[in-house]
Amino acid sequence: MTTEGARLLPSARVAILGPGLIGGSLALALQRVLRADQLLVWCDAAEERALVSAAGLRVTSSLEESVQTDVVVLCVPVQAMPELVARMLAFLPARTTVTDAGSVKAPLLAALEPMLGARYVGAHPMAGSEKRGFAAARADLFDGARCFIVPSADEDRTRIVEALWKAAGCHLERIPAPTHDAIVARVSHLAHALAPALIRAAARHPSKPLRYAGPGLRDTTRLASSDPALWAGILSANRPEVLDALEAVGAEIAGLQAALRSGDAAIVEAWLAQARILREECAASRPEVAP
Amino acid sequence: MTTEGARLLPSARVAILGPGLIGGSLALALQRVLRADQLLVWCDAAEERALVSAAGLRVTSSLEESVQTDVVVLCVPVQAMPELVARMLAFLPARTTVTDAGSVKAPLLAALEPMLGARYVGAHPMAGSEKRGFAAARADLFDGARCFIVPSADEDRTRIVEALWKAAGCHLERIPAPTHDAIVARVSHLAHALAPALIRAAARHPSKPLRYAGPGLRDTTRLASSDPALWAGILSANRPEVLDALEAVGAEIAGLQAALRSGDAAIVEAWLAQARILREECAASRPEVAP
Repeated sequence: MTTEGARLLPSARVAILGPGLIGGSLALALQRVLRADQLLVWCDAAEERALVSAAGLRVTSSLEESVQTDVVVLCVPVQAMPELVARMLAFLPARTTVTDAGSVKAPLLAALEPMLGARYVGAHPMAGSEKRGFAAARADLFDGARCFIVPSADEDRTRIVEALWKAAGCHLERIPAPTHDAIVARVSHLAHALAPALIRAAARHPSKPLRYAGPGLRDTTRLASSDPALWAGILSANRPEVLDALEAVGAEIAGLQAALRSGDAAIVEAWLAQARILREECAASRPEVAP
Repeated sequence: MTTEGARLLPSARVAILGPGLIGGSLALALQRVLRADQLLVWCDAAEERALVSAAGLRVTSSLEESVQTDVVVLCVPVQAMPELVARMLAFLPARTTVTDAGSVKAPLLAALEPMLGARYVGAHPMAGSEKRGFAAARADLFDGARCFIVPSADEDRTRIVEALWKAAGCHLERIPAPTHDAIVARVSHLAHALAPALIRAAARHPSKPLRYAGPGLRDTTRLASSDPALWAGILSANRPEVLDALEAVGAEIAGLQAALRSGDAAIVEAWLAQARILREECAASRPEVAP
């Protein structure tokens, strides 16, 4: 890995550990640009291996075999990553770079860097869905999506990881791990916490209101259909930032309650109008597609 | 109005007051089943009258002319309805039935019944969009949507209003006004309050997180793009129920915060899993299409 990563990827061998929605989509995305012998998927469950194999991907149940590659991408739930890395340490070649697709970065860095040093390059592609498993995977899931990269001290390793996510369709952005975690707490994790809170609160009435749910509530609570185990892991891993963001929501709700209690609809309108401006800004901003 | 409303509609003349998203869509929906001379749209703004007229609808700026019909449908913002009815009282024929498409029912009943008595039949079609104005109106907006009906003491008038909304494509459900308001606070108004709270809270960080918003946040906050003046009126009109529902959300958020602080991801997972069950139930339940 002495030359530039972007130029190395055409010959690099990549192993994807965990072919769920994200890992499966990454495998299908890289299948578009890599030769079949450059790509290997590791999976514990025989049933899922059959699905992956049927998609024309090479698959193995041997962790040892899977790490005999240039880049290993951890696509298991964040809370399972440290243990998986600990298992592979005994036979992980020094040349192999390890990256991941986890939704938090600082806690992973704290857990993985002591084991991997500069061999670990953090990554987080901002794409997903409330669906799960290889059956929901799509080759175009990452097309035009932003991928955050937490660089390691080894620039060559950082570049090969960047080349990989770029080849998968992502637009890249380098970021320090703590900044990443603060941002995703607010633009991703918070909505995954509030959508369930909303549906739980809406259900809480003797009139059984959920029978009458329409498209507004269904859209607003779509993320409440996400995998509970996966998201319990993510919210717990990013706990300080998620708690801080939940406090901010509590303060906003208190502000609306005060506006409503004032009896002055103009105050409520100003509160809603500020929110609308913020929403229009973020609905308009989309990441550029990587050239 | 002595024979059944449903059979009367084919010959009834209908006036729609306010051709916004809802009133405009109702006009376009009824245009599919009524003759041109049965349908009249009232509108103050000359610019909007031109749009409505271009869609092949008869339009007037005379409130007096518009109420010389069998059914008048109030499609202006809820807070403007009492004043509009007060203006039309002087020339409103006794035979004319008045209904509305407002998102709250008990406060409207309290304001309109003293003026109209049994001539007022409340209605609320559960359809909409964050868009506004006649330009966003669609003939199929109500197809398959539920329409709540708050019956008046006059069964014939209630039936002609039901016939109207059924002709527009709705599935009907009679309901007492207070029950209606408790339900819509939870399945509609609460999401319109929380989507803005979420986007406001997500924006509150030095890292300017909204630059990084993805489809999850955009979907969850879609309702924050709704018309602030319209929704300030609705939330204010349904204040007691909305405040109660916001308290329930606050309690749910506190529950999640406690689960996160416990450090036990299994508690967080159970909280998310319960929400997922509720969401799947409400995503599955859709109103039957009226036969």
